[in-house]
Amino acid sequence: MDNRYDIAVVGSGPAGLSAAINGKIRNKRIIVFGSKELSNKVIKAPKVDNYLGFYGITGAEMKKQFKKHIDAMGIKITYERINAIYAMGDYYGLAVNEKMYEARTVILATGIEYTKPLRGEEEFLGKGVGYCATCDAPLYKGKIVTIIGYNKEAEEETNYVSELAEKVYYVPMYRGTYDLKRGNIEVVSDRPIEIQGKDRVTKVVLKEREIITDGVFVLKDSVAPNQLVPGLLVENDHIKVDLNMQTNLSGCFAAGDCTGKPYQYMRAAGQGQVAALNAVSYLDSLK
Amino acid sequence: MDNRYDIAVVGSGPAGLSAAINGKIRNKRIIVFGSKELSNKVIKAPKVDNYLGFYGITGAEMKKQFKKHIDAMGIKITYERINAIYAMGDYYGLAVNEKMYEARTVILATGIEYTKPLRGEEEFLGKGVGYCATCDAPLYKGKIVTIIGYNKEAEEETNYVSELAEKVYYVPMYRGTYDLKRGNIEVVSDRPIEIQGKDRVTKVVLKEREIITDGVFVLKDSVAPNQLVPGLLVENDHIKVDLNMQTNLSGCFAAGDCTGKPYQYMRAAGQGQVAALNAVSYLDSLK
Ligand SMILES: Cc1cc2nc3c(=O)[nH]c(=O)nc-3n(C[C@H](O)[C@H](O)[C@H](O)COP(=O)(O)OP(=O)(O)OC[C@H]3O[C@@H](n4cnc5c(N)ncnc54)[C@H](O)[C@@H]3O)c2cc1C
Ligand SMILES: Cc1cc2nc3c(=O)[nH]c(=O)nc-3n(C[C@H](O)[C@H](O)[C@H](O)COP(=O)(O)OP(=O)(O)OC[C@H]3O[C@@H](n4cnc5c(N)ncnc54)[C@H](O)[C@@H]3O)c2cc1C
Repeated sequence: MDNRYDIAVVGSGPAGLSAAINGKIRNKRIIVFGSKELSNKVIKAPKVDNYLGFYGITGAEMKKQFKKHIDAMGIKITYERINAIYAMGDYYGLAVNEKMYEARTVILATGIEYTKPLRGEEEFLGKGVGYCATCDAPLYKGKIVTIIGYNKEAEEETNYVSELAEKVYYVPMYRGTYDLKRGNIEVVSDRPIEIQGKDRVTKVVLKEREIITDGVFVLKDSVAPNQLVPGLLVENDHIKVDLNMQTNLSGCFAAGDCTGKPYQYMRAAGQGQVAALNAVSYLDSLK
Repeated sequence: MDNRYDIAVVGSGPAGLSAAINGKIRNKRIIVFGSKELSNKVIKAPKVDNYLGFYGITGAEMKKQFKKHIDAMGIKITYERINAIYAMGDYYGLAVNEKMYEARTVILATGIEYTKPLRGEEEFLGKGVGYCATCDAPLYKGKIVTIIGYNKEAEEETNYVSELAEKVYYVPMYRGTYDLKRGNIEVVSDRPIEIQGKDRVTKVVLKEREIITDGVFVLKDSVAPNQLVPGLLVENDHIKVDLNMQTNLSGCFAAGDCTGKPYQYMRAAGQGQVAALNAVSYLDSLK
């Protein structure tokens, strides 16, 4: 009971934040997983004209407005990446590495991944290619692992994997400094082209070099939703929802880009609100 | 041709305005019908906490932001009330008294009409009278609230308000059993006649008694919009739409309160955007 939240919001873009403020206003015990920057797709927008109330605003300014809003309401983001979500009957278990959070309802607001898969990525998925390093790390005890990281959160997973693997190659797909902890991690500043192998992955081909490897993790901003939540119904790569933002799993709602097109802030925020208010109705119906 | 618009938006609340800005950004010839005040349900809100990006804003301030946005984009509201909308095959005819406007697509964003207001209800709207108990409940912390409920959904809102208010009078306008959870809720089986006060609400006069109160929520059903658009499919008093905000009539979309609950700004604006972008797709498919 103690540790169990009413609503777990996964994602801190407009969909997740809107869900959070509405859940909080309705006095529910919420937890919001996401990142310090809230959403890359917010901060990187050069100019936004179609969010009613703000005309010609930059994404960075919009982020500030969103941050001010949640700060004023005392909503904190938990800077953790959910690896998997399990339906446990009357609650959901949300896994972050070895830690597990519990919540009665879940709102998926994870956005979608625009990045095109690498050559070979889909072919070797599950045969040495994975999207959750911390889930599969135990398979690579004493082995060689390559991690292609699209954001800073990937560094934490890399550190974790490096505790088990013999050698970890880290290929950052972003600029900055890398917070990597162990001597067996080698940063490779190069552009990956293709993942190769026969039955399983054997190497990663980059622009300048090749890496012999037992496994490759591609850590993007978001994973396919049905990999995140086993049993979740997906249609045309998007989470299937009804007008109440209800998924096929009871107590599990979704909002924003992960539910379909058009990919837009306002739609995402509106859906986040609907998801939260329906999660509240669901919670109240349980009593 | 000359007189025929690409998109006619009926309503200038958040749903209609969001539809308008998105239609305009997509270079469509739009016309927006509504009022100078944009929406009574916007300007009368005492305090809005759940529109992502603006915290603790008054409805009047929010209206200013919306107005600034459409002004910056050169969007003008046509201050006319549409009496009827007729599907004419490849266009719609929108009647204003004897005048007729033509548009290839229509976006209905008319909000919902609250039927038969009580005496004093409109006078004190926003001055102690409200239509969304869950939105305004925080204003009544430790106070006395009267809720006039026209349907069972009102009970959930009553339970929520009772967590914050000191005392809640619940006046059910329907028969049945009432699922009320807390001891500070008193069911009043009587017929409300008038809402009274000076600058703000002070009491509700019923047939048999009077209730001294700080606030009154009138939680009603909505009326059918199929009177406005003959042939429009309505379900539970709301326009039936799919996830693309498409109604049963091709080229006719709907957004906001008129499509269903929860009645909220953010949801309305999000749906307005989706309606407009799908109207644009529809228009482009005609070419
Ligand atoms: C450059 C650019 C410009 C754009 N301009 C506009 C514009 O002008 N107007 C407009 O309307 N739209 C614009 N968009 C689209 C808009 O950004 C998206 O539609 C919107 O951000 C979607 O919101 P969301 O909340 O669904 O997802 P996102 O904003 O993508 O947020 C998803 C969040 O979930 C987090 N997350 C994902 N998986 C997990 C997990 N497992 N655990 C924890 N957290 C997780 C992510 O880190 C992220 O914080 C633009 C997009 C880009 C990239
Ligand atoms: C006092 C009050 C406080 C509220 N507080 C909150 C809050 O804190 N948070 C929140 O999210 N929601 C709140 N709401 C609810 C919110 O106002 C509505 O959900 C929202 O306004 C719905 O937007 P809409 O665009 O669908 O419709 P509306 O805002 O109702 O706009 C409909 C528009 O259509 C016009 N119209 C209708 N028929 C015609 C016609 N035939 N021809 C031309 N024009 C027409 C109307 O004049 C109006 O301008 C509050 C409502 C009230 C009354």
